[in-house]
Amino acid sequence: MTKKEHILIIGAGLCGSLLALRLTQLGYQVTLTEKRADLRKAKLAAGRSINLALSNRGLKGLKLVGLEKEVESLCIPMYGRMLHNLEGESQLSKYSGRDGEYINSISRTGLNALLLDKLETYPNVEIKFEDTCTHVNLKQASASFKPVASNPPESSSRAGSEYIIQADYIIGTDGAGSMVRKQMEHEQGFLFSHSQDFLTHGYKELTFPATKNGGYASEKGALHIWPRGENMLIALPNMDKSFTVTLFLAYEGGKYNFNNLTSKAIVEEYFKEVYPDAYKLMPQLKTEFFENPTAPLGTIRCSPWTYGKTLLMGDASHAIVPFYGQGMNASFEDVVEFDKALVESDFEFENAINLFSKHRKPDADAIADLALDNFHEMKSHTADEVFLAKRKLELDFENQFPKDYHSKYSLVTFREDLPYSKAIRQGRAQDLVIQEMLRKNILKPEMSLEEKLNLVREVSKKAEENELIFDL
Amino acid sequence: MTKKEHILIIGAGLCGSLLALRLTQLGYQVTLTEKRADLRKAKLAAGRSINLALSNRGLKGLKLVGLEKEVESLCIPMYGRMLHNLEGESQLSKYSGRDGEYINSISRTGLNALLLDKLETYPNVEIKFEDTCTHVNLKQASASFKPVASNPPESSSRAGSEYIIQADYIIGTDGAGSMVRKQMEHEQGFLFSHSQDFLTHGYKELTFPATKNGGYASEKGALHIWPRGENMLIALPNMDKSFTVTLFLAYEGGKYNFNNLTSKAIVEEYFKEVYPDAYKLMPQLKTEFFENPTAPLGTIRCSPWTYGKTLLMGDASHAIVPFYGQGMNASFEDVVEFDKALVESDFEFENAINLFSKHRKPDADAIADLALDNFHEMKSHTADEVFLAKRKLELDFENQFPKDYHSKYSLVTFREDLPYSKAIRQGRAQDLVIQEMLRKNILKPEMSLEEKLNLVREVSKKAEENELIFDL
Repeated sequence: MTKKEHILIIGAGLCGSLLALRLTQLGYQVTLTEKRADLRKAKLAAGRSINLALSNRGLKGLKLVGLEKEVESLCIPMYGRMLHNLEGESQLSKYSGRDGEYINSISRTGLNALLLDKLETYPNVEIKFEDTCTHVNLKQASASFKPVASNPPESSSRAGSEYIIQADYIIGTDGAGSMVRKQMEHEQGFLFSHSQDFLTHGYKELTFPATKNGGYASEKGALHIWPRGENMLIALPNMDKSFTVTLFLAYEGGKYNFNNLTSKAIVEEYFKEVYPDAYKLMPQLKTEFFENPTAPLGTIRCSPWTYGKTLLMGDASHAIVPFYGQGMNASFEDVVEFDKALVESDFEFENAINLFSKHRKPDADAIADLALDNFHEMKSHTADEVFLAKRKLELDFENQFPKDYHSKYSLVTFREDLPYSKAIRQGRAQDLVIQEMLRKNILKPEMSLEEKLNLVREVSKKAEENELIFDL
Repeated sequence: MTKKEHILIIGAGLCGSLLALRLTQLGYQVTLTEKRADLRKAKLAAGRSINLALSNRGLKGLKLVGLEKEVESLCIPMYGRMLHNLEGESQLSKYSGRDGEYINSISRTGLNALLLDKLETYPNVEIKFEDTCTHVNLKQASASFKPVASNPPESSSRAGSEYIIQADYIIGTDGAGSMVRKQMEHEQGFLFSHSQDFLTHGYKELTFPATKNGGYASEKGALHIWPRGENMLIALPNMDKSFTVTLFLAYEGGKYNFNNLTSKAIVEEYFKEVYPDAYKLMPQLKTEFFENPTAPLGTIRCSPWTYGKTLLMGDASHAIVPFYGQGMNASFEDVVEFDKALVESDFEFENAINLFSKHRKPDADAIADLALDNFHEMKSHTADEVFLAKRKLELDFENQFPKDYHSKYSLVTFREDLPYSKAIRQGRAQDLVIQEMLRKNILKPEMSLEEKLNLVREVSKKAEENELIFDL
């Protein structure tokens, strides 16, 4: 099943590496380029790097390339959200009422290295690190590259020797700041719709180091959240027993914000006041806070994803905010969907590109919206009675009727057989219906759980179809 | 009330000209630049140029600068939509059940010339035509300009002499393709959210010339629509007894589209088949169709509208599609709102800029969404019973209870005292409620019109507050 076409993939992050691996396995001639250095050559930092939530849709991508076993050793299961209040009390809210449904904390570097290591075992791929793409000819499928020096350019012998790669097709997997997408924005005579939306919040990564005894500073098997209304802190476990902690905070407004946390004293005051228990776990806080960058939170959308012989994939076409833990999972699912499109197009690459773009776009839009919605839910996470009662009811449904009920979270996270758009539509309908039924006391105590489930399912189905239930 | 600040306004279209006039009247030192030639020096073409719908929000802007009387002689009142079906039958659907509520067809060039003529009567303004802005320093309020030659550059003595204008503040009113906005997109270290969305339809302008007897080829006092499902034709009257006709058609798909209407024979076939009555009124069709450009339909959004000492206004910050006839009206209302912001800020210009941007953005977003929604309604405009019954009921309400009821169209178009966001929220709630009541037969024949009105108002108010009415 050798495919003759030469595919140039620009960007060797998670999506580009998985895509390269799949196309290589299918027999294409693949060139994978990356402007950064090979992340495997800086392995010391790997264990401490940013971690991500890997769940079913992402695992589906890894299964496609035969890495589902290998990845297990990198995964730390997280069974629910551990919510921490101001008084230092914590409470676990499980992700699912079914056994065996959990998400995984995984090191971005470790996972990327796994993909690259596997990729290098194939003869029909070339990987080029530290080469920046400077221009793409979208119609001709050729791209210009300039080697970058790890050291200052004047001391490097690599700098300066620009070259061109001529391929049959180009796929841009170069992330939210995609150079390939920018080329589409500037292309003449091509109606390219695109948007870039930033939140008024940014984020900063911090650390809970391992304890002196060499253990985790907090419960390992959970995603920790300190919801504080407008702002929040979260923490995910790492293999080296540390946690990567992320602060989500507004750039301006309120008592504390990124623009006014400018001295060690104010940072200390802020954490002591708002996150007193977490503060005790961060001995390096006052150093890290000023060493680590404050990064923006953006959503990227565009349409179409393809022009000429070039396609965008992953964050390059649909970067989302991290509040549903689906960014990487969506990108990995892109690869699965593109693989399907190739099969459906009988491996006519251009047809597959067009099929994929049209078919996948509504799902990318749906998860982008949901991720934005969830920011509010995560950071407020109040003890709202209706919300808590809904969550309890859904966990009971999932536990007692595991095949008949999936909450919105389960539909999105654990039902990798459903497209995002369908999962989200159904999940939102259920949310509205249950909350309204609880408010109006329609789910009477004398009803059995099964009766409640049947009523919720019946009305949710109607709500999903109509979008608006309106009975006077 | 002399204001010392020097305000540079880039773009002398409708919004820029009105803004310049208002700021000049307030005593600011104003420089207004425009890359195109002075449109008053090509007056021959004026009567035939694109026309626009001017309604109450736009008139409010003209009143602010004292031109409400002068503009009357340029206006042709349109009292409703004249719908034309395939059989050549037509039917007027009035815009309002109240007397004296209508919109106006007006020549873009004529209106712009009126503003520029008035502007030139003031000593504290300088207008510079045919100078293209090449760069803006957003923080320093300085901009570089390059004179453009009307003739090919090599033959012009003006070309080449680049110069800089140093102002206190810059306002970019340079339209949907705004160069000032692009400068914001490229500004480093500034989180600028922005989007550009194209419809899959484009448009092309055509003409019904005056009849041989020197009269209008169709009813003068209406906006004509030939709704044909996916595509449509509209026509607005001009002072010279012609109509400017606009075809809205998809670029691809369907039997006919812009990409396949490539020969005179196919264009003739299309119009004869789909717009047979209009076809008879277009003797120049086969020439015009190929001479006139096909233009895209886009929506531009961004946030914030201001950075450093620079502000965006009008289409530069919120270009919308033309399907609610509100593009120019929204831009003129910007000037009214900015004037209010200046007063509220006690003429502290920087404060006014910030106040205006924050305050006005939700209204610009609301009208952008509504204009998109209305495309579907306009081109489908079927004989849907519920839709027609709703329209009839609303006209009756407006006619019998003129102070107590305003349809969505009236709220948006004739209630210039309400912000767009409020008008649209209320209008949408009413639409949903009336349609649902008609479908469910809640408005019984035995009810008086007043009883129906009271029920609609009561439930609409609830719907507006909750967004979702959900009674099980």
